Amino acid sequence: MEKPARVVLEERDAAGLLRQTSVSHIGFSVPDVMATADFYGRVLGLVVQGHLPDGGVRLGWGIGHHVVELVKGEPALQHYGFEVRDDDGVEGIAKRLAATSHVVEDLARDYIDCAPGSPSGIVVRDPDGTPVHFHGPVERQGENAADTGRRPIKFQHTTLGTADVQAMVSFFVNTVGFRISDQLEDGRFAWLRSNRDHHTLAVVNVGRSGVLDHYSYDLAEWEDFKTWCDRLTDAGIDVTWGPGRHGPGNNLFIFFDDPAGTHVELSAEMEKFHDDRVTYVARQWKPIPNSVNLWGGQLPTWRKTSQEG
Amino acid sequence: MEKPARVVLEERDAAGLLRQTSVSHIGFSVPDVMATADFYGRVLGLVVQGHLPDGGVRLGWGIGHHVVELVKGEPALQHYGFEVRDDDGVEGIAKRLAATSHVVEDLARDYIDCAPGSPSGIVVRDPDGTPVHFHGPVERQGENAADTGRRPIKFQHTTLGTADVQAMVSFFVNTVGFRISDQLEDGRFAWLRSNRDHHTLAVVNVGRSGVLDHYSYDLAEWEDFKTWCDRLTDAGIDVTWGPGRHGPGNNLFIFFDDPAGTHVELSAEMEKFHDDRVTYVARQWKPIPNSVNLWGGQLPTWRKTSQEG
Amino acid sequence: MEKPARVVLEERDAAGLLRQTSVSHIGFSVPDVMATADFYGRVLGLVVQGHLPDGGVRLGWGIGHHVVELVKGEPALQHYGFEVRDDDGVEGIAKRLAATSHVVEDLARDYIDCAPGSPSGIVVRDPDGTPVHFHGPVERQGENAADTGRRPIKFQHTTLGTADVQAMVSFFVNTVGFRISDQLEDGRFAWLRSNRDHHTLAVVNVGRSGVLDHYSYDLAEWEDFKTWCDRLTDAGIDVTWGPGRHGPGNNLFIFFDDPAGTHVELSAEMEKFHDDRVTYVARQWKPIPNSVNLWGGQLPTWRKTSQEG
Amino acid sequence: MEKPARVVLEERDAAGLLRQTSVSHIGFSVPDVMATADFYGRVLGLVVQGHLPDGGVRLGWGIGHHVVELVKGEPALQHYGFEVRDDDGVEGIAKRLAATSHVVEDLARDYIDCAPGSPSGIVVRDPDGTPVHFHGPVERQGENAADTGRRPIKFQHTTLGTADVQAMVSFFVNTVGFRISDQLEDGRFAWLRSNRDHHTLAVVNVGRSGVLDHYSYDLAEWEDFKTWCDRLTDAGIDVTWGPGRHGPGNNLFIFFDDPAGTHVELSAEMEKFHDDRVTYVARQWKPIPNSVNLWGGQLPTWRKTSQEG
Amino acid sequence: MEKPARVVLEERDAAGLLRQTSVSHIGFSVPDVMATADFYGRVLGLVVQGHLPDGGVRLGWGIGHHVVELVKGEPALQHYGFEVRDDDGVEGIAKRLAATSHVVEDLARDYIDCAPGSPSGIVVRDPDGTPVHFHGPVERQGENAADTGRRPIKFQHTTLGTADVQAMVSFFVNTVGFRISDQLEDGRFAWLRSNRDHHTLAVVNVGRSGVLDHYSYDLAEWEDFKTWCDRLTDAGIDVTWGPGRHGPGNNLFIFFDDPAGTHVELSAEMEKFHDDRVTYVARQWKPIPNSVNLWGGQLPTWRKTSQEG
Amino acid sequence: MEKPARVVLEERDAAGLLRQTSVSHIGFSVPDVMATADFYGRVLGLVVQGHLPDGGVRLGWGIGHHVVELVKGEPALQHYGFEVRDDDGVEGIAKRLAATSHVVEDLARDYIDCAPGSPSGIVVRDPDGTPVHFHGPVERQGENAADTGRRPIKFQHTTLGTADVQAMVSFFVNTVGFRISDQLEDGRFAWLRSNRDHHTLAVVNVGRSGVLDHYSYDLAEWEDFKTWCDRLTDAGIDVTWGPGRHGPGNNLFIFFDDPAGTHVELSAEMEKFHDDRVTYVARQWKPIPNSVNLWGGQLPTWRKTSQEG
Repeated sequence: MEKPARVVLEERDAAGLLRQTSVSHIGFSVPDVMATADFYGRVLGLVVQGHLPDGGVRLGWGIGHHVVELVKGEPALQHYGFEVRDDDGVEGIAKRLAATSHVVEDLARDYIDCAPGSPSGIVVRDPDGTPVHFHGPVERQGENAADTGRRPIKFQHTTLGTADVQAMVSFFVNTVGFRISDQLEDGRFAWLRSNRDHHTLAVVNVGRSGVLDHYSYDLAEWEDFKTWCDRLTDAGIDVTWGPGRHGPGNNLFIFFDDPAGTHVELSAEMEKFHDDRVTYVARQWKPIPNSVNLWGGQLPTWRKTSQEG
Repeated sequence: MEKPARVVLEERDAAGLLRQTSVSHIGFSVPDVMATADFYGRVLGLVVQGHLPDGGVRLGWGIGHHVVELVKGEPALQHYGFEVRDDDGVEGIAKRLAATSHVVEDLARDYIDCAPGSPSGIVVRDPDGTPVHFHGPVERQGENAADTGRRPIKFQHTTLGTADVQAMVSFFVNTVGFRISDQLEDGRFAWLRSNRDHHTLAVVNVGRSGVLDHYSYDLAEWEDFKTWCDRLTDAGIDVTWGPGRHGPGNNLFIFFDDPAGTHVELSAEMEKFHDDRVTYVARQWKPIPNSVNLWGGQLPTWRKTSQEG
Repeated sequence: MEKPARVVLEERDAAGLLRQTSVSHIGFSVPDVMATADFYGRVLGLVVQGHLPDGGVRLGWGIGHHVVELVKGEPALQHYGFEVRDDDGVEGIAKRLAATSHVVEDLARDYIDCAPGSPSGIVVRDPDGTPVHFHGPVERQGENAADTGRRPIKFQHTTLGTADVQAMVSFFVNTVGFRISDQLEDGRFAWLRSNRDHHTLAVVNVGRSGVLDHYSYDLAEWEDFKTWCDRLTDAGIDVTWGPGRHGPGNNLFIFFDDPAGTHVELSAEMEKFHDDRVTYVARQWKPIPNSVNLWGGQLPTWRKTSQEG
Repeated sequence: MEKPARVVLEERDAAGLLRQTSVSHIGFSVPDVMATADFYGRVLGLVVQGHLPDGGVRLGWGIGHHVVELVKGEPALQHYGFEVRDDDGVEGIAKRLAATSHVVEDLARDYIDCAPGSPSGIVVRDPDGTPVHFHGPVERQGENAADTGRRPIKFQHTTLGTADVQAMVSFFVNTVGFRISDQLEDGRFAWLRSNRDHHTLAVVNVGRSGVLDHYSYDLAEWEDFKTWCDRLTDAGIDVTWGPGRHGPGNNLFIFFDDPAGTHVELSAEMEKFHDDRVTYVARQWKPIPNSVNLWGGQLPTWRKTSQEG
Repeated sequence: MEKPARVVLEERDAAGLLRQTSVSHIGFSVPDVMATADFYGRVLGLVVQGHLPDGGVRLGWGIGHHVVELVKGEPALQHYGFEVRDDDGVEGIAKRLAATSHVVEDLARDYIDCAPGSPSGIVVRDPDGTPVHFHGPVERQGENAADTGRRPIKFQHTTLGTADVQAMVSFFVNTVGFRISDQLEDGRFAWLRSNRDHHTLAVVNVGRSGVLDHYSYDLAEWEDFKTWCDRLTDAGIDVTWGPGRHGPGNNLFIFFDDPAGTHVELSAEMEKFHDDRVTYVARQWKPIPNSVNLWGGQLPTWRKTSQEG
Repeated sequence: MEKPARVVLEERDAAGLLRQTSVSHIGFSVPDVMATADFYGRVLGLVVQGHLPDGGVRLGWGIGHHVVELVKGEPALQHYGFEVRDDDGVEGIAKRLAATSHVVEDLARDYIDCAPGSPSGIVVRDPDGTPVHFHGPVERQGENAADTGRRPIKFQHTTLGTADVQAMVSFFVNTVGFRISDQLEDGRFAWLRSNRDHHTLAVVNVGRSGVLDHYSYDLAEWEDFKTWCDRLTDAGIDVTWGPGRHGPGNNLFIFFDDPAGTHVELSAEMEKFHDDRVTYVARQWKPIPNSVNLWGGQLPTWRKTSQEG
């Protein structure tokens, strides 16, 4: 196999301005909203926190901001959002987007449920055309304060599939203010951070634009992975990848699909970055199976790397 | 002691038609409803989710379907229910019951709280005359999605005391659609399954009909048993049996009594049955203490076996 | 250094009458109520359960009785409360207080949220002049039934700073009905119990009256301390003391400050006292660092002992 | 794919006579004895307990009976052995083998190291022609008494590859005295027990005779699997299968290869059989990936099932 | 039942002089030395470290001082020993014994295996006439440095059965230098300490003199109790008491019998006493089942208390 | 305080040639060899594996290569050694040292105990003049194969105190073949790796040359830290720092002193570097307390950073 080119993704300008920004919510369309909502209820413990006019629903853990929005349609990513707790956070992003000729609009108020005071937010389209939400602080007691165990602790990251990793990375790093924690040497996969977690957003080349590669919830610890694999087995759901450990992020993982075929990850032990105390340079990983799964390189059918090692 | 007869309980007809059916709720009468409700609140974390006209209450974990109904009266089992998620489940059970001349009635709608869509259910009397509920899917986020730890994960099984084990087993297996996982050789105790758990219902000969022998909640793991024994001790409640491990089901257990004297079990590690992948034959256990408690055969005052080994 | 005098705190009269009494709630003033409430929401998972007319808030875990009341003002202790489940508990305390010429008033009804039946309570000023609440049973499912993990299990004790330990101890032991579990030999620190926990109230000489030295929440177990230290680090909050293990109470601990500078403790493994089964005599600890931190005597800047060993 | 025939492996005659028999040791040839011994030393903690005249070595944990014998040669199974603690065990096996015209010889005394008293043993060729050892009690403190953690607890089972499963099963069950715990419906894989463990020997159709499919060591618990996967990664060794959970035996597993390509399994939580208390009938598993790996059916390159499900 | 008298065991004279003294070894006679040694090898991991002229053996963990001596005979306690690390320890004991007219002899040198330098020890008969050994420091790496898990960590205490608790307690406390940690109110059971552990020696009234009531090994933690109960079950050994938690010592426990009928305890979480930092007064426990087993008072057939509560 | 200069330590030439090199042993002088050996025996489980002519001893875990050499004298570092498993490892180091005019001598054969085949090694003086050993593979079953729990898993790293960090780093990185994982921005502390562990050697400016700052053993996991703190407390040994978590290496830690005042670290969860899969750039940490202890910056008396933050 031909050796893939080395591509170093650049950090410029705004890189690193965000340090207290995390994923907030995600919206995607599914053919059968009720069946999918029932799945998330039985499997992840999510309850319906809101109904949309067109039959869509918003799901959460019964307290605090919602996590998932389901609307009826062919499986597709509809939007994804971030909660920005940095000083001058949303305003700063808005200014930088405007300065780089992006169209920035106000985020519809109902997307920002469970916000104290007078919440505000913006929506902009990412280079692939998918709406991205940035909004101020919301209450998330259903998540960060959640107990360990059977229920995931929190929604942790979104991984976008795209045909142009460089454009997406440049948008989020050099304009929005994320940083690069890790990348594959061939530039086809990058992991971006906006708080102490190794990544809150990742971007992978899947040959198509505007795709949801997968999204991920945090578990508390390794012990929970056995409970979850057994519990998914009880529910008749196949674990499609793992348990394993990623190189980038060093996090433990399993993957399974929801009824619409969305890949869902459960993860733990993600590496932390202390940008207030230490200067990092993004790492370059070989595009081989043993990089994305440190434990022997076992892969699922739907995850490819440039080389086989 | 005379050697007990060997009795093999039979599986015929409908046996095994149910594979996605679990316990749903249980109702019993107690002399002091408020004291008992307070006990379940302090000890198990159950909250009052509904009030009945006659002073009874329905208890749950504050989200999803209720678990326990308490009504005023001498301690007695009032009804017990199952949630049926099998295709053609409740309808199929109703047809088979009707075909075997049982009186089947509609279940009062208010028993099926937290059901999505238009819920329905039936009620029929078991061979001992106790009303049994079968109803369609309900939301149980307070249970299956519950976190580990101090609160039980879910209501897991009901064990009925009867004077005629064969009649009860035949009703549930050959008409309703359960299967036999284990039995004692003398036919005086049988464990029946309706999903991947080793049993969701058990039947034991206690010399009287229509009795609640005990009912059981799941804990997450062995570690929780120390926490629970210490916590019951703090609350002035005696552990009456265990910690131990049952032979049938292989589950870890402790038992204690509620203020009305009802035996309550906390259990973990119950054996799983994968009927979609494997063919099983029910096992026959010797009626000795070391079968019901693998760890040395220690028993409480209220549990007897035919032989002492 | 001069050897400190030995002071044996006495138990007389009412000592030990209370055996089912625990901390209920605590109120303190902070300069910025919303920032402090946001902190308790993000860090401890507490939600706003009630709003006070003057902009204050009451925080709890979304179910059951509230835990913390925040009002606007310079950092100061406003009141602290106990839930009394002993027979003749609140009434008995009221009688003993009246008999010793204390002014006893009815506790405002809204302080006793989530009480079944017709709740009642009293308020009295402790020897330092701080209002103390005693009230009957309330529902605490958000606490005692709480799951392990990221969220504390319950509010566990209050430690008062005073200039007169003997007066405070005499009030709580000889009039109210607590017992002394441990004291420092110099009489400058005492730990009092009112149920099976080693202490629900402690009193330490800090040279000033009516001060909140710190207050404490229970964690489930040692494993949680790593999670909590990492999580506080993620949130930019310094651990100021520990992990360590106290001599009196034998409990594991860490401390950190809320935005108003209040010391907050997280604790586990506190020693249990079984007064229904055994007779104890209060222990006398040397006033040295290795007594308050068994693991080598490491101390924070704000905790002093009479001697350095 | 054509539906595979159903083949029920039979139990007759001696089946179940052995209840206290476990694997004892295994011998195989490898191209580089020293490199392989070094591997087992670094990875599994095995030390050289004995040297053979031809440069071979015997490995153990430094105390008690040896576990592995390595001799120089192309990778091949040389022999495998069992420790028989049943009353009349070795003698009974010898008699039954003689009665069925097998050639039974005395086992060389040096194979039975660490035996108290006057040890004896026999050697016979299995239907594939591989020598099988049966000998009396030996001391195994290095194994059964071993501590949890980084070192495996004990050598637990051998899985033979063969071209004739029925012949092998009949030999071990109907003559030697094992029982069948589980089989695939197509008769191409069977798991045999000789003590409380679900299997101490398994036989799988690999199209060739006299092959070592893999052999397995016990770990203490699920937590150890993360430690082992990380540790193998540190040592540059790929995990080739798992973590996963087998259907037959219900045991957790990972697999990796030694330098000679031998598949080595680490396993935990194997199901227990209590033949002194209960009567079992062997289960029939569908020959699908989800049977051999309950968690979603992920398989390694070298494990096939008749069907893909 | 008549109310038992209250008996307060006294501490005088030498009480508390020993603070670094622990159990060292124990010797008892058994009908079948080899069968018993095999049992301790298989179950506890003990190996034969020495052979005695008369066919007896000394068992240990393969490194450091021996733990158990078995000699042939009817089941009976032969001797028990302590390792004294206190300054002026053995010499001080010898002087105090001589001063109180006890016959003190030199301990045979071979009892003090694995001692650095020139070891010495004494032997004296306790009030019941059983030889007690006191000797200086020995190496115990097989114990205190032992790893957690399947193997006990160390030999922890001996409990003597006697007909005269007061005489035994007075001997060990007032002459030898132990202290009383706990006693039953009726004076029929006392727990004595000689280091930070709650007890290294206990004395219980069993109506006969010079009896070994039981002896005990430490486990690392609660999790190990499940492993041990399962493992004893695998080995066909009944757990005769527990899992439970003692009141005096607060330690978790299980009991089982060796082939000679000796009660063996496995224990964890024993309470610690810090006599260098704190002054204690011995506690008085009610002689009821719930004192010796805090978790509900379940007892084995062979343990009685004066009252049933 | 004046802002410290930024100093970037350079990697040149040989940097990164070593990837399979770990600490092997360490030698230091202590005033009382026997007391120190007894301490290491009681506390860490080390046994005397060899005696030196001058009364010194070599300590290990009873199997495999020795870990510590103690000789009589004022407390001082005598030598430290590495086991080199890289291809052309020791020879390559020798060549590079010779090429840079270092005096390289053969290592005395008895230092290389437990080596298979014909072991060889070299000794050279580091820039501070302390002898450094590099030798080929040895057996370390007492370490890497050690079980979890009370005994450390392995000797993990040495931290040298020096007056010239740059000279030491340049020697180990640019000549010997280590790499820099982390450094403080002021160049006063550097952590060097030679295998997948974040560091096997660290160098810190303490103002004097040739000093042993501390050395470190690995524990298995966080849970062990409570056991160790309690156990050190039982043994009367103060924990002088921690539990905490280092920024560089991300490892959990505690520190205590041996009788000669040597700082001993116990550590777990050290970060891993996968140089075969990924390219790293050394990180620059601010010289503040919160860098060396992520959990709030608590420090012991003997650890300073340039700034207080």
